[in-house]
Amino acid sequence: MTERRQLRLNLFVYPGGHHEAAWRHPGTDPGRLLDIGFYQELARAAERATFDAVFLADGPSLADNVRYASRFRLEPFTWLAALAAATERIGLIATASTTYTEPYNLARLFASLDHLSGGRAGWNIVTTGAPQAAQNFGLDAHPVHAERYDRAHEFVDVVSKLWDSWDDEALIADQRTGVFADTDRIRPIDHEGSHFRVRGPLNTPRGPQGRPVYVQAGSSEDGRAFAARHAEAVFTAHQTLPSAKEFHADIKSRAAALGRDPDRLLVLPGLSPFIGSTEAEARRLQREFDDLTQPEYSLDLLHRLLGVRLTADRLDDPVPRELIETHGERGNGSRFQLVLDIVERERPTVRQLLHRLAGARGHQVVAGTPEQIADHIQEWFEHGAADGFNIMPPWLPGGFDLFAEHVVPLLRTRGLFRFAYEGTTLRDHYGLPRPADRAAVPTSPKDTA
Amino acid sequence: MTERRQLRLNLFVYPGGHHEAAWRHPGTDPGRLLDIGFYQELARAAERATFDAVFLADGPSLADNVRYASRFRLEPFTWLAALAAATERIGLIATASTTYTEPYNLARLFASLDHLSGGRAGWNIVTTGAPQAAQNFGLDAHPVHAERYDRAHEFVDVVSKLWDSWDDEALIADQRTGVFADTDRIRPIDHEGSHFRVRGPLNTPRGPQGRPVYVQAGSSEDGRAFAARHAEAVFTAHQTLPSAKEFHADIKSRAAALGRDPDRLLVLPGLSPFIGSTEAEARRLQREFDDLTQPEYSLDLLHRLLGVRLTADRLDDPVPRELIETHGERGNGSRFQLVLDIVERERPTVRQLLHRLAGARGHQVVAGTPEQIADHIQEWFEHGAADGFNIMPPWLPGGFDLFAEHVVPLLRTRGLFRFAYEGTTLRDHYGLPRPADRAAVPTSPKDTA
Repeated sequence: MTERRQLRLNLFVYPGGHHEAAWRHPGTDPGRLLDIGFYQELARAAERATFDAVFLADGPSLADNVRYASRFRLEPFTWLAALAAATERIGLIATASTTYTEPYNLARLFASLDHLSGGRAGWNIVTTGAPQAAQNFGLDAHPVHAERYDRAHEFVDVVSKLWDSWDDEALIADQRTGVFADTDRIRPIDHEGSHFRVRGPLNTPRGPQGRPVYVQAGSSEDGRAFAARHAEAVFTAHQTLPSAKEFHADIKSRAAALGRDPDRLLVLPGLSPFIGSTEAEARRLQREFDDLTQPEYSLDLLHRLLGVRLTADRLDDPVPRELIETHGERGNGSRFQLVLDIVERERPTVRQLLHRLAGARGHQVVAGTPEQIADHIQEWFEHGAADGFNIMPPWLPGGFDLFAEHVVPLLRTRGLFRFAYEGTTLRDHYGLPRPADRAAVPTSPKDTA
Repeated sequence: MTERRQLRLNLFVYPGGHHEAAWRHPGTDPGRLLDIGFYQELARAAERATFDAVFLADGPSLADNVRYASRFRLEPFTWLAALAAATERIGLIATASTTYTEPYNLARLFASLDHLSGGRAGWNIVTTGAPQAAQNFGLDAHPVHAERYDRAHEFVDVVSKLWDSWDDEALIADQRTGVFADTDRIRPIDHEGSHFRVRGPLNTPRGPQGRPVYVQAGSSEDGRAFAARHAEAVFTAHQTLPSAKEFHADIKSRAAALGRDPDRLLVLPGLSPFIGSTEAEARRLQREFDDLTQPEYSLDLLHRLLGVRLTADRLDDPVPRELIETHGERGNGSRFQLVLDIVERERPTVRQLLHRLAGARGHQVVAGTPEQIADHIQEWFEHGAADGFNIMPPWLPGGFDLFAEHVVPLLRTRGLFRFAYEGTTLRDHYGLPRPADRAAVPTSPKDTA
């Protein structure tokens, strides 16, 4: 019997929730935004819903607009280690920057998270988009896109070697003979590249998964090339089925062209669901949140996405398309295009556009009944647009609880999503193989020299 | 009523235990050395014993002698975050290097550990002694001692400013007005020094303790000066009461000379106890462990401490004093002197010296009855040699369980140690004040300019 292809679902955790006004809504308790117990309850709820993973975004700087929005950061390694202690199966995906960390330190953090969670670590590999990060690390300017990706490729190479610097069987711990580790199975990596020189080996045994699951979230040209080469899962933002299908097909064919199995690269768009017992109720709920947004904040976000500053005095005029086309900056490449597409397609007023983006910063927002949400997921899943989704609840925990209670059962009865975990690691949940250690790789002539 | 001065006790956690052969002893389960559950049980046991803190050593490289000894590293931030989730009151002290991390990243990790633990984080500030670390970070050579300490001073300055970059009251989260954070109470730090340029602010609100407790563990001249200026607790190794008294008095007077309150700098020597119902039984137990040591390993450790390599063929000859005095290297300064003192005082054979060091790498090892151990602690505590101890169990968990069950009750009935926690944070346990935020500091003319 062939097993039916299964959806992968992550809970993307954001302080307060993904709608920019979530923290102002009565369904949110702003007193618990820094309370680890709150996030532990959330992770346990996601585990009861047999989600594949919880996911934390990150960046090493403070957002400019913290005056109006819950935009501080939860440091992912400490936070996820504490979530690991409160759960047993769910995967734990940490965002970490290749631009602003050292490979040796990062390799240790992930190896440790993988050990202490019993093999549930995933790494969302980012090069960091926020230019102000540079000033927290002694740089005059944020490295340009191509330079960041160049470093990222080498970074992944280095940490992959560090994670493989102990063979799986290197830890012996034979009390009788007194051999603690088989040092023939622990090797320096002696990496010398244009960005890094790292001798190794790592100072911890190989983790349960060998390496964390490699995730990537950039949809630019550099981002796609990077994902095709390294990623095992890709997080992406799409507003329409055709756009998501194009991306899905493109990423899979790029991976195939590099000799990779496209089934081992999961495409997971973001989805922010407003759920009601009727579509009208769901839309009313969404409007409640939109009405809590603050133009001071939203215009600032739009400015960062487009490079063009619109003003608050003409919110109900149509978005001036020509202005964007002429003066917009494609710095935030793929997200710029996404906003421009909305403008072309929907001809919104400024206020309407702000509300469109308030939901999930450009990710797809869907308001409807549980059946409509499940239909949407199924449509994207079955039409080659998604292998699963990053669920981005508009507010927490309520926005997730509604999804878990009302949409997950539908996905299960439709045969699209698991009733129970079959494995124990994130690789198990995602259907990804465990990378072999170096002992399992045929020895090259150079190695025996 | 004046409260009687209380002992501070940390559990210094080391994979397997502190005796170098601990992992080979039947009391140790080598299958659990990487099992977070094992360490969580240990932390809970230390919390039941109302210990002040658990403490993890660290270094960003692999020890040379992992063939014979359990010398891999548990990454402290992830590990302690998972221990935080399993405990409620006990402090969590992470070792972290100022030489091989970036201040912005480190400040985030500690702020987060402090938030998620409800104010239990401590930072053992090290400059990293192991020269091989340099090669994991692209350096040609490990920076020399003075250079490392120079960077450390500035590093502490930078992270202190980052931890103070949000006032305590900066997080408003007023759902009605829509003000999430009072951005007048969040300030860039604009640090420009000889080692770092960091703009800030930190991307997370100020932690429950303001800053983690600052701990330091070097006893060299540079180390003492550093401790006197920055540390709130000092970990140190002494074999004799006079040596510990000299250190205690020196550190306190250095702190006083800098205008600090000497009571706010705790001196905590290491102590590794072998406990038996008779002294003879305790000594037999110690011998059991010593007999499991492996000269290949121990001689290597001795070489690193002394800079002189002795050989395994004459283990029962006296240690050649002249050789050490003439050819020894004082690179590992204070520990070199400590070993030389043992040689002068005890005139041991090579094997005897190896066993002396096998217990806890130069820290004090005491074998005796619970009363004798308690007497020893009381004597050092009351004679100005210690404000408390880093308890370094020879093996885990048994070596700690004996201490908790048999020595802690004696210390309590003697009025030296708490029966219950009075506060909730590590600062509370240690009797240290919470650093005021910048809003509480009188504004200088420069700030108003």
